[in-house]
Amino acid sequence: MEEKLNDLKNRLAEISDLNNAAAVLGWDQQTYMPPGGASARARQLATLSHIAHEKFTDDVIGHLLDDLRAYAGGLPYDSDDASLIRVAKRDYDKARRVPSTLVSEITHTTAQAFDVWRKAKAESRFSDFVPYLQRNLDLKRRYAECLGYTDRIYDPLLDDYEPGMKTAQVEAIFANVKQEIVPLVHAIAPKQHMVDNSFLHQAFDEQKQWDIGIEAARFIGYAFERGRQDRSPHPFTTSFSIDDVRITTRFMHDYFPAAFFATMHETGHALYNQGIRHELERTPLADGASLGAHESQSRMWENLVGRSRPFWKFFMPRVKAVFPEQFKNADAEKMYRAVNRVQPSLIRVEADEVTYNLHIMLRFELENALLEGRIAVNDLPEVWNSKMQEYLGITPPDDAHGVLQDVHWSHGSFGYFPTYSLGNFFAAQLFDQIRKDISSLDDHLKKGEFHILLDWLRANLHTHGRKFTLNELANKITGEFLQTYSFTAYLKNKYGEIYNL
Amino acid sequence: MEEKLNDLKNRLAEISDLNNAAAVLGWDQQTYMPPGGASARARQLATLSHIAHEKFTDDVIGHLLDDLRAYAGGLPYDSDDASLIRVAKRDYDKARRVPSTLVSEITHTTAQAFDVWRKAKAESRFSDFVPYLQRNLDLKRRYAECLGYTDRIYDPLLDDYEPGMKTAQVEAIFANVKQEIVPLVHAIAPKQHMVDNSFLHQAFDEQKQWDIGIEAARFIGYAFERGRQDRSPHPFTTSFSIDDVRITTRFMHDYFPAAFFATMHETGHALYNQGIRHELERTPLADGASLGAHESQSRMWENLVGRSRPFWKFFMPRVKAVFPEQFKNADAEKMYRAVNRVQPSLIRVEADEVTYNLHIMLRFELENALLEGRIAVNDLPEVWNSKMQEYLGITPPDDAHGVLQDVHWSHGSFGYFPTYSLGNFFAAQLFDQIRKDISSLDDHLKKGEFHILLDWLRANLHTHGRKFTLNELANKITGEFLQTYSFTAYLKNKYGEIYNL
Repeated sequence: MEEKLNDLKNRLAEISDLNNAAAVLGWDQQTYMPPGGASARARQLATLSHIAHEKFTDDVIGHLLDDLRAYAGGLPYDSDDASLIRVAKRDYDKARRVPSTLVSEITHTTAQAFDVWRKAKAESRFSDFVPYLQRNLDLKRRYAECLGYTDRIYDPLLDDYEPGMKTAQVEAIFANVKQEIVPLVHAIAPKQHMVDNSFLHQAFDEQKQWDIGIEAARFIGYAFERGRQDRSPHPFTTSFSIDDVRITTRFMHDYFPAAFFATMHETGHALYNQGIRHELERTPLADGASLGAHESQSRMWENLVGRSRPFWKFFMPRVKAVFPEQFKNADAEKMYRAVNRVQPSLIRVEADEVTYNLHIMLRFELENALLEGRIAVNDLPEVWNSKMQEYLGITPPDDAHGVLQDVHWSHGSFGYFPTYSLGNFFAAQLFDQIRKDISSLDDHLKKGEFHILLDWLRANLHTHGRKFTLNELANKITGEFLQTYSFTAYLKNKYGEIYNL
Repeated sequence: MEEKLNDLKNRLAEISDLNNAAAVLGWDQQTYMPPGGASARARQLATLSHIAHEKFTDDVIGHLLDDLRAYAGGLPYDSDDASLIRVAKRDYDKARRVPSTLVSEITHTTAQAFDVWRKAKAESRFSDFVPYLQRNLDLKRRYAECLGYTDRIYDPLLDDYEPGMKTAQVEAIFANVKQEIVPLVHAIAPKQHMVDNSFLHQAFDEQKQWDIGIEAARFIGYAFERGRQDRSPHPFTTSFSIDDVRITTRFMHDYFPAAFFATMHETGHALYNQGIRHELERTPLADGASLGAHESQSRMWENLVGRSRPFWKFFMPRVKAVFPEQFKNADAEKMYRAVNRVQPSLIRVEADEVTYNLHIMLRFELENALLEGRIAVNDLPEVWNSKMQEYLGITPPDDAHGVLQDVHWSHGSFGYFPTYSLGNFFAAQLFDQIRKDISSLDDHLKKGEFHILLDWLRANLHTHGRKFTLNELANKITGEFLQTYSFTAYLKNKYGEIYNL
C-alpha cells in the first residue's frame, strides 16, 4: 500500500510542478510579457495544461485511488493522506467526466469570446457579444451535463469554484442577506454627505503609493523573502509554491484607496497561501480550500482589518509621513470614515462593503435564470438594469457600465461570482470567532500587532490548505456551517454608527 | 509521409513549448524570483526537463525520423523539412545515447558543485572545490564515452555547444591566433598610458545608464514590442519564442562601459533570435546555429559596432546629452579610444578585445589536459598561473582571481569556453564579407543607419535559425570555413593605429 501511495504522490507532484510552471507563465503574461509574446504564450499554456490533464486523467491514477480507498478509510478524516486521497479522487472524477474535446472547445470558444467582449465593452455594444455569450452558455450547459447534477444545473458549475457548495444553500443565504442589506442601502443613500472622502481624491505620487502599500503588507505579515509585488492591469495573487506567493497591484494617480486596498486585499490572499503547511507542498492540497475561503482572507485584511478604526489608529501616522500635504487635515478617525463611504454605484469592483454583495446577487440570479432558460441572453441588459434599480436605486447609462462590465462571462466562468460574497460572509463569521478567542484583538491591531491575528488564521485555517470544504472549515472552526448573521450584524453595527441610523 | 511529418512536427512542437516554458521559469529565477522560491523552482525545472526528455527520446520519434530519412534525402539540404529532420535526428541520437540516470547524476552533482564553488570562490580556497571538480570531470568523461568519439574525448563535449566542430580544428585555429596576439599584447603593454579612460570611471546614475542603454538597443534594432530588458546579477539573453526575446543587464555605478556594453552585447544575441524566420517557430530550428554563431552576433554589436569610430561619431552626442557633466571634456574620438583601452587583466569577463581570447585559450588547453589526464585537478592553480604569466604577463594574487573565477566548471560545462572565441573570429569573418557587400557601411553607421547592417545579418544569417553548423554558415556566407585572419587583421589594424605600433 505504501508503494501505491508513493506512486500516487509522485504522479501528483509532477502534475503540481506542471501547474505551478503554468502559473509562472500566467504571471509573466500579466506582468512583464511584451505584446509579441502573446500567441506563443497561449500555446505554451495550452501545452502545459494538456500534458497535466493527460497525466492526471491517466487510468493508472484512477486505479491507485481505488486501491487506496480502504487505506484512506482507516485514517482520520483530516489526516494528510486521507485528505490527499479524498480530494484527489474528487478532482479525478470531475476531470474524467469531461471529454477533452469539450475542454478544448471551451478554451477555444472563450478565447474568441474574450476578444469580442473586450471590444463590445469598449464600444458599449452588447449585441456584438450576444452570439458569443450564447455559445459560452451552451458549452457550459453541456459541461454541466457531463459532470451531472441532481438538483440544479448551476450546482456542478458552482462546485468548480466552491467544492461541495449547493445552489440552494447560496440562494437561501443570499435571500437572507438581501432582506437585511437593501433597507440598509436605502437608509444610507440620503445620508451619503455625512462622510467626506474628498481628501482621498488628490494627486498621489505612484512610487510613494507603492512604498506605503509595501509597508502595510509587511506589517500585516507578508513574507517578502517568499513573495513579491509587481504591477499588472488587474491586481491578482498567484502562487508557484508555498514559498513563492506573489501579488500585483495597479495605481490610480488621483485616488489613494485604489492601490492601497488592492495591496491589502491581495496580501490577504497571499498570507493564506504562505501559511499552508509545508508537508502539503507538491500535492493538490497546497492551495486554499476554495475561492470563497480565499476571498474570506483577502476581504478580512482589506475590510475587517484595513477598513477598521484600530488599523487606522496604528497606520495613519505612517500614511501621513508619506503624504503629509495630502493628509494634513486628516486624522485616523477621518480616514476611517472616508474609506468607509457608502455610495450605490454601477461598477462591482468599485463597490463599498454594504452594496458589494448586491452586485453579486444580481449576477448570481441572472446566471441561474440564463442556465435554466428562464431568461434569454438578449434580455440580459433589461433585466440587469431593472435589478440595479431595485437593489441599488440606480440605472446604468450604458451596457459598458452594466451587463458588459465583468470579464467572467466572456471566460465562461458561470458559478464564480457567488464565491466573492461567500468570502465576505465567511470572513465575518471567522472574525466573530476570533474576537471570542482573542478578546483583546482591537488593542493588538491598534498597536500594529497583526501577528496575533495572523497566527490565529495560520493555526485555524491556512495550515489546512485544501483539505476541507468551506462548510467543513466553518463547522470545524466556529461550530457552525457557513452563516450570514455575523456579516449582517457587522454591517449594521459599523454603518449604523457611521451614518447615525 | 505527410502524416508522419506532421506527427513528428506536432511532437517537436510540444517539446519546444516545454523547453520554452522552462526558459520562462529560468528567466524568472534570475530576475524576479524571491529567495524562498528557489527549491520549488529547481524541482519544477527538473520536472519540465524530465518530461521534455522523455517525450523527445520516445521510440516513436526515432521511428518517425528513420521513416522520414528517404523523404528528407529527396529535398534540398537547406529546405525547412530536410533541415528539421537532419537536426532533430542529430539531437535525438545524442539524447538517446546518454542514460537518464547519468543525466540526473550530472544535474545533482553539479548543483552541489555549484554551491561549493560559490563558497570556495568567496573564500578563495581552491582545495575545497577540488573533490567536486574531480567528480564533475569524471561524470563528463563518462558522458563523453556514452556519446562516443574517434579522435579526442573533448570532441563530444564541444559538440554540445558547437555542433560539428572538432577539437583539432579549434586547436589549429587557436595556435594560429595565439602567435599573432601574444606579441601584440606584449607590444601594447608598455604603451597602456597612451589611452586615457579615466573619465569612464565616475559616478553614473543608474536610471540614466538604463535609459541610454535602451536607446542604443533601440537604435541598433532591438524590437521592444517583442522583447524587454530586466536586471539580473549576470547579464543574459533568453528566448520564449521568436517574438519574445529578452535580455538582462546589471550596473556599476562608477564605471560607464559595464552596463552599456552588456546591453549592446545581449542585444546582439537578441537580434539573432528575433531575426529567425517565423516558419521555424516551435521546431528545434528556432534558435541560433550554435553558441559560437550566437557569440558572433553579440560580439559584433558590442565590439565591431559598439567599439568602432563610426558608432561613437553617431552616438556620442546622445551619451553627452544624458551625462553632460561626466563627458564634458570627451568627444567621439576620446570615447572611441577610451572604450578600446587594452590592459592585460586577471578576469576574463572584464578583458578587452585583444587579450580576451588568450583567457579562452588557457581554459581550452586546461580542459583538454584535464580530460586527457595530462594534468591533475590539484595541479590546476599552478598551471593556470604559469600560463597567465606566459600569455598576459601577469599572475593572479589568489585563486578567486585565477582558476576559481568562472562558473562553467562548477556546472560541468567543459567544452563551452572555446565558443566565445569562435564567436569573435566568426564575427570578424562576417564583417569582412559585409564590408565587401556594403562598401559604404561606415557611412551608414556614422549616420545611425544600423538597419543596413541588421538587414544583411537577417537575410544572410539570422533567418536560418539552427539549420546549419558554424562551418556550414561560414562557407555559405563567405565561401570559406571558419577562419581567423579576418580577426587578427582587424586587431592589428585597429590597435596598431590606436597604440601607434
